[in-house]
Amino acid sequence: MGKEKGEKSSFQLKVPKGTKDWEGKDMVIRDKIFGSITEVFKRHGAVTIDTPVFELKEILSGKYGEDSKLIYDLADQGGELCSLRYDLTVPFARWLAMNSSIQNIKRYHIAKVYRRDQPAMTKGRMREFYQCDFDIAGTYDPMLPDAEIIRITCEIFQSLGWEGRYTIKINHRKILDGIFQVCGVPTEKLRAISSAVDKLDKSPWTEVRREMTEEKGLDADVADRIGEYVTLKGSKELLERLLKDEKLSANESAKAGLADMDLLFTYLQSFDVLDKISFDMSLARGLDYYTGVIYEVVTEGSAPQTSEGQALQSAGKKESKPKKHAPNADGEEDRSNDPSVGVGSVAAGGRYDNLVSMFSGKQQIPCVGISFGVDRIFSITKQRLAADASAAAIRTNEVDVYVMAFGGKGFDGLLPQRMAVAKRLWDAGIKAEFSWKVKPKLPQQFKAAELNGVPFAIILGDEELAAGKCKIKEMGLAEGHPEKDGVLIAMDNLEAEVLKRIGKRGVTASLADGVNGMSLEEAAKTEPKTS
Amino acid sequence: MGKEKGEKSSFQLKVPKGTKDWEGKDMVIRDKIFGSITEVFKRHGAVTIDTPVFELKEILSGKYGEDSKLIYDLADQGGELCSLRYDLTVPFARWLAMNSSIQNIKRYHIAKVYRRDQPAMTKGRMREFYQCDFDIAGTYDPMLPDAEIIRITCEIFQSLGWEGRYTIKINHRKILDGIFQVCGVPTEKLRAISSAVDKLDKSPWTEVRREMTEEKGLDADVADRIGEYVTLKGSKELLERLLKDEKLSANESAKAGLADMDLLFTYLQSFDVLDKISFDMSLARGLDYYTGVIYEVVTEGSAPQTSEGQALQSAGKKESKPKKHAPNADGEEDRSNDPSVGVGSVAAGGRYDNLVSMFSGKQQIPCVGISFGVDRIFSITKQRLAADASAAAIRTNEVDVYVMAFGGKGFDGLLPQRMAVAKRLWDAGIKAEFSWKVKPKLPQQFKAAELNGVPFAIILGDEELAAGKCKIKEMGLAEGHPEKDGVLIAMDNLEAEVLKRIGKRGVTASLADGVNGMSLEEAAKTEPKTS
Repeated sequence: MGKEKGEKSSFQLKVPKGTKDWEGKDMVIRDKIFGSITEVFKRHGAVTIDTPVFELKEILSGKYGEDSKLIYDLADQGGELCSLRYDLTVPFARWLAMNSSIQNIKRYHIAKVYRRDQPAMTKGRMREFYQCDFDIAGTYDPMLPDAEIIRITCEIFQSLGWEGRYTIKINHRKILDGIFQVCGVPTEKLRAISSAVDKLDKSPWTEVRREMTEEKGLDADVADRIGEYVTLKGSKELLERLLKDEKLSANESAKAGLADMDLLFTYLQSFDVLDKISFDMSLARGLDYYTGVIYEVVTEGSAPQTSEGQALQSAGKKESKPKKHAPNADGEEDRSNDPSVGVGSVAAGGRYDNLVSMFSGKQQIPCVGISFGVDRIFSITKQRLAADASAAAIRTNEVDVYVMAFGGKGFDGLLPQRMAVAKRLWDAGIKAEFSWKVKPKLPQQFKAAELNGVPFAIILGDEELAAGKCKIKEMGLAEGHPEKDGVLIAMDNLEAEVLKRIGKRGVTASLADGVNGMSLEEAAKTEPKTS
Repeated sequence: MGKEKGEKSSFQLKVPKGTKDWEGKDMVIRDKIFGSITEVFKRHGAVTIDTPVFELKEILSGKYGEDSKLIYDLADQGGELCSLRYDLTVPFARWLAMNSSIQNIKRYHIAKVYRRDQPAMTKGRMREFYQCDFDIAGTYDPMLPDAEIIRITCEIFQSLGWEGRYTIKINHRKILDGIFQVCGVPTEKLRAISSAVDKLDKSPWTEVRREMTEEKGLDADVADRIGEYVTLKGSKELLERLLKDEKLSANESAKAGLADMDLLFTYLQSFDVLDKISFDMSLARGLDYYTGVIYEVVTEGSAPQTSEGQALQSAGKKESKPKKHAPNADGEEDRSNDPSVGVGSVAAGGRYDNLVSMFSGKQQIPCVGISFGVDRIFSITKQRLAADASAAAIRTNEVDVYVMAFGGKGFDGLLPQRMAVAKRLWDAGIKAEFSWKVKPKLPQQFKAAELNGVPFAIILGDEELAAGKCKIKEMGLAEGHPEKDGVLIAMDNLEAEVLKRIGKRGVTASLADGVNGMSLEEAAKTEPKTS
C-alpha cells in the first residue's frame, strides 16, 4: 500500500483543469443524447469506427493552423512522438488514406477530443469534450450527400426536442471566394479577410470593417463592397437575387458555388427542411480545409450575451492574436461567468474534398461531414431541464423490482429466499435488487426502493412462502388504492406476474420517455435560464 | 492547406504502436459485447460514471508498484502534470474520495486505458485497450456484494455464449497471508513470495520453488510447506478440508479468510453459480491493494501454449525482473505469434477496502469489483466466429429499406420521388437509404442493397406512381417464390406496409441475434482456432 491509513497525501484531490467527472443524472441525460443522435445516424445507414485517442504527432501537424498550439502532446518516453486527437475529422481522413480499398463510407464517431483551451465549464467548453461526428466519403452526384447531412442534422435536433429553436446557417466557400475576388481582395489577403468575416456572428460589421482596413490593410472601398455581400442573410430569395448578380455570375468560383446552392436548396425542399436554413453570407468557418458548402447550427445561447465590441474582441477561440503564453497558463480563470463567452455553435461542418489527399498523396476522396458539440448540447438541455419539474423524475438506475422480506419475532431476514427470488428475476432478464443485509428492517428496504424510484416491490414473508406465495406491490400507489398493500401471487408464476406488470407500466421505456420524449420537448418550450 | 495536392508527406501513415482502428464487423461484434455486458450491469442496478482520460500524475503514482513504468505521461506544456489512466479502479477511488456524500454505489465504467507494454495485438494485448469495470462501494453485511459480483460475472459470460467454457478462479488474500505466516515466511518477504506464487498459472511448482529459494532466499522447508498449500485446487470440499486444518485455524488471518469463503460459498449456492468456481490456492493477483477475496476468470487460450519453463519465464507482464529500458523501446516485436504469450485472464478483480482512504486520508469506503478485459474477450469471440459460417452474415449497418427507381426510355431517375419516399420512411423511424445518383441503373441499386444485406427494397416506377402505388420487394427470396418480384402497395400506406414487413421479419432484432444470440452460442460449441 506504500502509505499508512490515515496518512493523508499532500496532493490536491481534483481532476485536471478543463476536465470533469460525469455522474448521476448528468450521465443519464448525456447517454440519452448520445442514444438519440446514434439512432438518427443508423437510420441513415451509418457505421461507426473507433480510432485511438492519440495519433502520431506528425499526423496532426499542419492541419489546424494557429490552433495547433492547443494540441496536447504525450511526453517523450522513448519511441514514437504522439499527440491527443484534436478532432475526429483528421483521424477519419488518416483512416481513409490508410484503407484505400474503402472508396465510400458513411461513418459516425462519438468520442472525446482534447484542446488546451481556456475552459468555460458550464457552457460546455472544456479541454476534454465529446464530439459526435458524421461524415460521408465518396464520389457521388453533386450535393446529394450534402443535402442528406442537413436532413440528418434536422432529424437530430428534432429528436432532441429542439424543433423551432435552432437555425442551420449555411454558406459556400466558393461563393465567398468569388465575392472576395469580385470585390478586389488581393489573393494573399484572402484567408485573413475570410477569417475577419467569420467574426460577424460576434461582432458588428463596423468592427469587422475596422479589422479589415486597419489591421489587415484592405482598401476601404474593397471592404465596403464586401460589406454589401457578407451582411446578407436569407433563404431561397437571397439565392435567386445572387444568381441574378451579373458580377458574381461572371466569376467562375461564385458561379460554381451558386449552382451548388441552387441544387442543394432543391434537395432540401424534397427533404422538407428548407425552413430550418438561413443562407448566411457571413458564415466563413475557421478551418482551412473546407472546399464547398459549410454550415453551423446555432440556438439561443450560442451568441454571447453582450454586444459590446470591446468585450467580444478578446472572447472565444476566434481571436486573431493568440495570447502570450503566460508562465502559468493554468492560472487563468474558468470563463463560465464571462457574459462575452457564448455557448457557440452546437454543430458545424462542411465539405472537405482535399483533406484525404494530404495523407494519401495521390488518392483523393471527397468528403462532407458535420460535428455535433454534444457537451454544448448537453449544457443547453440541462438548463432547459432545470426549468422543468419532470427532470426531478429522471432515475439514475433502471431497476424494476426491489426484493424485500419482513417478519415478526424470530424473523431471520429470509436472505436465501430473497437471493433465490432475485436470481429467478435476473434469469428472466428482469432488473432487480435486494438489501445486502442479512436482517434488514422493512422500512429500510422501502426507503432503498423509493430512493431509486424502483416501481415494484416483491415482499417475502414466512407465512406467504409457506403457502407458496409472495406479495407484489406497485410503489407509490395513492392511499385507498385497492392494490395499495400489494397483491398475493403464486411463487410459481413469479416471473410471469412481474413481467406482466412491468410491461403494462412500460417501465423499461419510462426512462427513455422521461428524458428523451415528452419531458425534453416540454422542457424545450420553457425559456432557457441564462446564467 | 499548407501542402499542395499530390505532394506526399514523408511521414509514416500508421497508428501509434500498440493501438488500432476499430471498424467493420469487428466494431459491430465489439459493440455487441459492450451491449451484452452493459445489460447485465443494469440488471443489477448499476449506474455509470465517466472520468477523464488523463488524471493528475500524482493521483496515479504509488498505486501500481513496478508497473508504474508503463504509465503514459502527457508532455509538460505548462500547467499541471498529467498521465493517461492506467486502469479504471484508481480513478473510481479518486472519485469516491472527492465525493464524500456518496457512501455507496454500484457503478460500471466502460472505457479505454493506457499501458506502455509490449503489445501482442491479435491476442488482445494492446497499449490502448478497453476495460469494462463494475465495482460496488459501501459498507454491507459480509460477502453479499462479493457474491453478487461473481453472479454478475457468470451472467455476463452466459450472455456471451461462453457457458461451460470458463472458470472463475477464486482465493482470499487473508488465507494466503495466513498460509505464509503459518509456513514461516518472514514478514519482509511476504510480497515477494506472494508474487512468486502468482506465477503458478504459467510455471510449474518446481520453477516457482526455485525462484522462492534461489532468487528470494526462502528456506527450502518453508517453500515446501507453502507448496503443500498453494498447489491445492477444488471447491467446497477443499474449503472444508482447510477449515479443519488446525494450523490454519490457529492463525487469525487465515481464520478470517476461511470464514469469508465459507459464507461466500453459501451465497454462491443460492445464486446457483457454485459450479463455475475453482477455489485455487495459487491465485495471488499482482496488485497490492487487494484486501479480501480475489478472482480471475480464465478460458481456453488464457494460458500460454507451451509449458517449457524457459520460455514462460520471460513471458507476460508478471516477469519479476523488469527489462532494461532499451534505447529504442519501440524496436521490439509484436508478440502476437509468441506461443509463450497467452491471452491471459478475461476478467479479474477482488476486494480492496483501503484504496479510497489512500486519497481521502481518513474516510474509508470498502470496495469490491471486477474488470472485464473486453479486448481479450473480443479476440476469443472473433476466433470462435471465424469458425462459424453465420459470422459472414453479420451486417455492418442496419438499413431496413433501400429505395430505388427504374424506368424505360426517358427515365429521369425519379430522384425527387426517391427522396420524398426516404423522407417519409425516416419520419416513421425506418432505416432507409437510396442511391446518391440522379439517374442510377437498376442493377447498381440492387447491388448496393445486396452489398449491405438490406432486407427490403421499395421500387418506384412512373406507371406505378401514376396509379398511386409502388413495389415492395423482400430481398433474397428464392426463385419461384410468389413474391419474388415484389408486391404492389398503395403509396398512402407506405410506412405501415414497410413496418408490418420489418416487424414480421424481426429485422431490427436480427443484428443482435446474429451476433449475440444463436450464432455466438453456436460458435462457442466450435473449438477455437489456435494461432
